[in-house]
Amino acid sequence: MASVRKTATKLADGRDFFYFDDSEPYVSGQATRRLDDPRPLADRFAPVPGPDGTETPFTGPIMRYDVLTGDWIPMAAHRMNRTFMPPADANPFAPAREGAEYQDGEIPDTDYDVVVFENRFASLMQVPGVPDKVRYLDNNHLFPERPAAGRCEVICFGPRLDENLVSMGPKRMRTVIEAWVDRTRELSQMPGIEQVFVFENHGEAIGVSLHHPHGQIYAYPYITPYTEKMMRQAKAYRQSHGKNLLSAVLEAELESGERIVAQSEHWVLYVPSAARWPVEMHLAPKRQVPDLPSLTEEEKADLSEFYLKMLRAGNKFHVAADGSPVDLPYVAGWHQAPREAQLDLRLHLQLISIQRSPDKLKYLAGSESGMFAWISDTTPERIAARLREVWED
Amino acid sequence: MASVRKTATKLADGRDFFYFDDSEPYVSGQATRRLDDPRPLADRFAPVPGPDGTETPFTGPIMRYDVLTGDWIPMAAHRMNRTFMPPADANPFAPAREGAEYQDGEIPDTDYDVVVFENRFASLMQVPGVPDKVRYLDNNHLFPERPAAGRCEVICFGPRLDENLVSMGPKRMRTVIEAWVDRTRELSQMPGIEQVFVFENHGEAIGVSLHHPHGQIYAYPYITPYTEKMMRQAKAYRQSHGKNLLSAVLEAELESGERIVAQSEHWVLYVPSAARWPVEMHLAPKRQVPDLPSLTEEEKADLSEFYLKMLRAGNKFHVAADGSPVDLPYVAGWHQAPREAQLDLRLHLQLISIQRSPDKLKYLAGSESGMFAWISDTTPERIAARLREVWED
Repeated sequence: MASVRKTATKLADGRDFFYFDDSEPYVSGQATRRLDDPRPLADRFAPVPGPDGTETPFTGPIMRYDVLTGDWIPMAAHRMNRTFMPPADANPFAPAREGAEYQDGEIPDTDYDVVVFENRFASLMQVPGVPDKVRYLDNNHLFPERPAAGRCEVICFGPRLDENLVSMGPKRMRTVIEAWVDRTRELSQMPGIEQVFVFENHGEAIGVSLHHPHGQIYAYPYITPYTEKMMRQAKAYRQSHGKNLLSAVLEAELESGERIVAQSEHWVLYVPSAARWPVEMHLAPKRQVPDLPSLTEEEKADLSEFYLKMLRAGNKFHVAADGSPVDLPYVAGWHQAPREAQLDLRLHLQLISIQRSPDKLKYLAGSESGMFAWISDTTPERIAARLREVWED
Repeated sequence: MASVRKTATKLADGRDFFYFDDSEPYVSGQATRRLDDPRPLADRFAPVPGPDGTETPFTGPIMRYDVLTGDWIPMAAHRMNRTFMPPADANPFAPAREGAEYQDGEIPDTDYDVVVFENRFASLMQVPGVPDKVRYLDNNHLFPERPAAGRCEVICFGPRLDENLVSMGPKRMRTVIEAWVDRTRELSQMPGIEQVFVFENHGEAIGVSLHHPHGQIYAYPYITPYTEKMMRQAKAYRQSHGKNLLSAVLEAELESGERIVAQSEHWVLYVPSAARWPVEMHLAPKRQVPDLPSLTEEEKADLSEFYLKMLRAGNKFHVAADGSPVDLPYVAGWHQAPREAQLDLRLHLQLISIQRSPDKLKYLAGSESGMFAWISDTTPERIAARLREVWED
């Protein structure tokens, strides 16, 4: 590991909290400076009071099986009231105030480099004592439901609200990568976890409610529909062609060159031949690996530079009428192979944006929302050409 | 058919245009009043001029096969410049101006009831002389592409910008239903069409760019991902249980009653047990039919009243802080059985909304956009209870 020190602690309501320190003297979270978390946070697992004074045991979020599509749908009804766009002075991801006797946000220290903690408003949650079993709503076989027994974590990329991955630079990016690796490794070993998704939502246009630079990690207790589709395609491809599908795609893209945006020593950035979003990039290591923990030190070091170049190019993609660049709203997510598809799937990041032009967004309307049938307003070759145009090495 | 008269004509660029008249003297589109369409619209199929003075034949939109997911992605690059939020006096769906010598919008008459015409900015298009064949981009088997040889139609529900389906009432709704039936019947018989999707996008929040009351009809040259999922589930259910999946679901919902919103003589409105959107309703005929053309006169007459009650309930779902109702942004789309799934699939409408609360929207961020894994912030039972509360017979 690069010089990153991990320290584990707990928040007042029992949630796990991890410091990933990259700067001397690596003190955040140490007993000498750590603040207690005496916030009156409700016990996450406390019984739920009913209108008639009775209490029902808290069983956590559930998920329903959508028999029409075959998808599991977690229902996080308790998230309805989550924090939304608080004023800057109520930023829950800011470090605790210097000199304060206790923290008033999520962070139990007055400074940090990178921290990861369980989401307070988690839509996936493992509740002690609640068995991960299917039961049938209305006793009907068509209505299966199960605890949404996964885990949602937040990763703060740095202590300051006015910074972001690009401004913080490669050293911090490297720490973020180490945190991604660590969380993927630990979460994928938790019982009941089928798949770990490391992602970042960036920009108000896609609904980001807290502007502090942060990402998220979802550990799903099921295989997501996108991954299921990829697994089906990759398995069929292995059966017919005897090789890994994404490796074949990468070779084909490199041979064509048409949609390659840039390469580093260990990584390739390209626009997929069937890009469905106004801006879409796939970032893959040149070596076939299933997930983030499989990356070598060299690959991670290289990624910490290359990832930021990718983000910089994204921010130059659109230029406003007055010549100023448009901070690209995006979702960047790592596709990692679940346990049962270690050979068929292959690590890659997908960065997508709904920004169609400097002042227009793509909306997911009838075709996309109703039929899951994406229609692109551009072509992958145009996207790639524009990205090459603004690329800076 | 109810007293609806259909008249077919063509627009200046050769697009099909259909009047559906429901009011005496059924004259719209008649030779005596019809205006020519002398707008200088470019021939839709004209060769495309290149930068060096040469011309390439227009081959229409293409679609690429996304080998990672198995989805076809149409690429309507020419739609990038489509009309977006024109001022009210440039409404292209308004009737031609009385006394004008020629039309300046899409409508070749000074009045109409309901009209349907091919979308000027179509993402799916059949171009004469272009064979519907797969070719391989870069000569690579991983990059198949095909003409996006489908059809996109627009349906205007009435002549006035300030009206909507609810305000126009059941008689007009009935005409809209007849137009849906007619277009489904004709489009599903066109060569190469796999599936007809009749839908309405409503509200700026989901990106509606023209406020004139209208819907859309997509005739896809492929089976959409949502329908494919339903076909897979329904086939498996028929094999294991010997019956139609949606029929079984409907029986189970009626037996439970928990999520039933309302019933009419021929229709049932319910919230599905795994609703994934903040507001979601499914509307199904009580009789098992594959598509809109299979409905009886009685079922259509009943629907023309019941559909509007459904929309009215949607508009009362959220109430703003000042007590005023929130005009619900929604996508309402008809799931119809493709040819090869007439027995397995069953007609139903899905109405979905991203409006989480009077002032909050659901965004499709990391989990939904990156993994196609929806997470609901509420429960189907809450949605159903609220809809029953505001329902008015």
